Amino acid sequence: MSEPSSLNDTTRLRIRVVFDDDAMLGPGKADLLERIRETGSIAAAGRTMSMSYKRAWSLVEEMNAVFRDPLVVSTRGGRKGGGARLTESGEAILTHYRKLEEIAAEAGAARIGLIKSMLKDIPEGK
Amino acid sequence: MSEPSSLNDTTRLRIRVVFDDDAMLGPGKADLLERIRETGSIAAAGRTMSMSYKRAWSLVEEMNAVFRDPLVVSTRGGRKGGGARLTESGEAILTHYRKLEEIAAEAGAARIGLIKSMLKDIPEGK
Repeated sequence: MSEPSSLNDTTRLRIRVVFDDDAMLGPGKADLLERIRETGSIAAAGRTMSMSYKRAWSLVEEMNAVFRDPLVVSTRGGRKGGGARLTESGEAILTHYRKLEEIAAEAGAARIGLIKSMLKDIPEGK
Repeated sequence: MSEPSSLNDTTRLRIRVVFDDDAMLGPGKADLLERIRETGSIAAAGRTMSMSYKRAWSLVEEMNAVFRDPLVVSTRGGRKGGGARLTESGEAILTHYRKLEEIAAEAGAARIGLIKSMLKDIPEGK
């Protein structure tokens, strides 16, 4: 996934919402939700992230356990590899999380710029 | 560090600034900087975080390698366990990072609230 891009232009935030010491929602789970929506399958979603079937399932189970309503439902076959889709709650959580990423990055842009300006390899005159 | 507190009141953000695929600044490094400032020693700082001496040193080295000026300097003894302190750059990065955490949490509060409201165990009537 790494691409040759100009120096420091890749600086970005990674956000994790921590509910308690064990439960959290971060970029991995958000990406997994997104890919389940795209692929209609937990296994396929995991594969696009080089994630084992077992790992993908366990992340889904974690999310379904933490929220009042499940975020992902298996439409058939379940652990045998059947289809899966996001519920309304799953869609809502994914939307909230992506918005949160945006808002935080926007609000933090000036501070991130200050940190970035102290990195090595800043182009001359910047 | 886990304390019995009222449900979901512990929900918070954890922020990581990702410079590229390898280098990042997150809560672990920020805490380590803070504790080096408090203890005057990398080893002692690591111990307060149940972090091995080796791990603490390697995080310090990572930070010192990524930024133009070192964030931490050994005042004597170096790897033998001598003192250490934050440089001006170290203080600045720590300040920027803590401010970034604050800003992001504040800006994201409404979205975090929406996510929180979908968790299990929300008190009745909330």
